[in-house]
Formats: sequence, structure tokens, C-alpha cells
Amino acid sequence: MELLKQKIRSEGIVLSERVLKVDAFLNHQIDPRLMQQIGQEFARRFRDAGVTKIVTLEASGIAPAVMTGLELGVPVIFARKHQSLTMTDNLLTASVYSFTKQVESTIAIAANHLSATDRVLVIDDFLANGKAAKGLLSIIVQAGATVVGLGIVIEKSFQSGRRELEETGLRIESLARIASLENGQVQFLE
Amino acid sequence: MELLKQKIRSEGIVLSERVLKVDAFLNHQIDPRLMQQIGQEFARRFRDAGVTKIVTLEASGIAPAVMTGLELGVPVIFARKHQSLTMTDNLLTASVYSFTKQVESTIAIAANHLSATDRVLVIDDFLANGKAAKGLLSIIVQAGATVVGLGIVIEKSFQSGRRELEETGLRIESLARIASLENGQVQFLE
Repeated sequence: MELLKQKIRSEGIVLSERVLKVDAFLNHQIDPRLMQQIGQEFARRFRDAGVTKIVTLEASGIAPAVMTGLELGVPVIFARKHQSLTMTDNLLTASVYSFTKQVESTIAIAANHLSATDRVLVIDDFLANGKAAKGLLSIIVQAGATVVGLGIVIEKSFQSGRRELEETGLRIESLARIASLENGQVQFLE
Repeated sequence: MELLKQKIRSEGIVLSERVLKVDAFLNHQIDPRLMQQIGQEFARRFRDAGVTKIVTLEASGIAPAVMTGLELGVPVIFARKHQSLTMTDNLLTASVYSFTKQVESTIAIAANHLSATDRVLVIDDFLANGKAAKGLLSIIVQAGATVVGLGIVIEKSFQSGRRELEETGLRIESLARIASLENGQVQFLE
């Protein structure tokens, strides 16, 4: 997705060989028009997959997921990392380690929002080692639902997440694939 | 906003005289079409306020805030409750107590995303005692920016938040105002 790559080139900040900061338009400040275009692109790619629900992870996945849900006309569920008094239902959970926060957390979805007939598209902001995606997939499998694919805004293709997930047969669509962050430069995979 | 009230009546669950659960369409599962309509309604009410930025709080504020930002054509910043390796900038912070999570947390916005010329609309999912809103307002004031108003999806009008905030001269627009949750019933303020 060329517009997204341009945005990464102009506003992304390479913090290290593994960390790209996109707080200017995705992870802290959000560009709503870009999110709309991202939602339209995910919808285009997964239009024929029979998606009935979108699942994402709070907080940075919510904006692209909701825009995709709007385009596809389906509800969005965001898995919670931090539980609330109002989460009184049976919970489906998974344990996920966050590299950028350096904490292990339990992510949860209320069981009543997913059913065995659901065809679920998972959307997330980043794919690196795949830990968050694997946690979400585990929850969807626990619900007996079908995963139709994974939509990623920015993939760090030099980390192992995509390869490990593709080995399970999962369809992955990433809108920007980064080959390297070496020497402070973003190199995209062509 | 009649559509929102209908959704609260049909899918909201009264957990106690103070807690309304709207996990079916706002706080866990999200109805993207309703969020779009909420965004359009906030945009209509604040169209003439000269808004340059929207500020909200992760995670449940993000969907209505991004839809409002899309309508008004302005960026959205979500204050973070949980800090990340990529938040390396100078941070503006405030301390906020969450009643539904029963924890005190520090919320933060990177200083470089707000400037003294910004005219900020604050959007949040709930207004109860006003603690989250006051934290966000404190951060915006620290940045030297102007707060033009507060847009709330669901106001619990029987709690003190609105009154306390209005005493400071703040303009508040709430799309659904709840007078009472007594006897397991949602009573709206007319």
C-alpha cells in the first residue's frame, strides 16, 4: 500500500534495528483518513472470505480494525489486556509477551461474542515475532470459530512471525512489509 | 441520539446502580456503523468550534474518537495508560483513578503531538465522576493548548462528573444521558 509506505518513510522513526516508531500516525497519534484507506484495503483483500467478525487487540489495533469492520459491515471485538469490572462473562484467554512493553500479559475475549459459526479476520497494527497474533488465534480456536486470515498494517519481515504463522496455513496480508531497519533506514520488501 | 439510546436499551446490561455494561457495542465488541454515526453526530455538534486535534484515552475512546476525527478531518491522539518502549519523547502526564478497573494509573501523551495553537476536542466513551476527563484536560492545559469541549458517548448524569466539569466553563455534549440505573432499569434524562 503505497500511501502507507510514504507515511512510514516520512513520519516513521527508526529507534533501533528492531524498533520502528510510528507514533505520529498509528500507535499514539492516529491519522483517521489513513485508517479509513487501510480499512478499505483490508476489505478489498478479504471481501470474498465470508468474514463475520473482526478480532483485534487493544489499543493500537482498534482504529484499523474498526475501519475494516465498517467497510465489511461486521462487528469488531478488541481483546483486552487489562480487565474491567464489566467483564463478568466467561473469558477465553491467552498469554502474550509484549516486546515493546516488556511484559507478559493475559489477553481476554468474552466467550459470548464469538461462536463456532464465526469466520474471523484478525487485524493488528504490527507483526514481528507473532506473539500477539498467536494469542488472538488461540482464543478464536478456543471459541471453535474459523480464522480466515490475518491483516497486518506493518510487518517486520526480518522477524520470524510471518514465517511461523504461514507454516500453519494462515493467510496473511500485510500492507507494508519491512525488510530491514539497519543503519537507521527503512527498507521495504518489494 | 436516539439510535444510541435504542442500542443501550436493547443491548446494555445494568450490573448495579452505578455500572452499565455496554460490552456488546462499545467497550469490548464494537459496532463500527454506530461508531460512524456517533462520529458524525459529534462532528455536527462541534463543527464550528475550530477543532484542530481530538484527544481520547485508550482503549474504548479510540473508536468514537477516530470516527469523529475522520468527519472533522483532524488527527486523533489517544493518551496511553501503559507505556511502551517507543514512547521516548517528553511526556505530559496525569494521574487517573479508574472506578471500573479499581486502579490508579498514569496517563500520558507525548508533548510533541500537542502545541499551544491546538484547539482540542476531548472524546470519551463514558462520563461518570469525571476523573478520566480531568486527567485529559490537565494534559492539554500542560501543553498550553485550548480545550474547546468534551464529547461523551454515554453520560451517567447521576454522578458528579458533568456538574464539576461544567463549573469550569467546559462545554459538554453527551449523546446519551442516563438519569438512573435503579431497579435494573436504564432511565434516560429527557
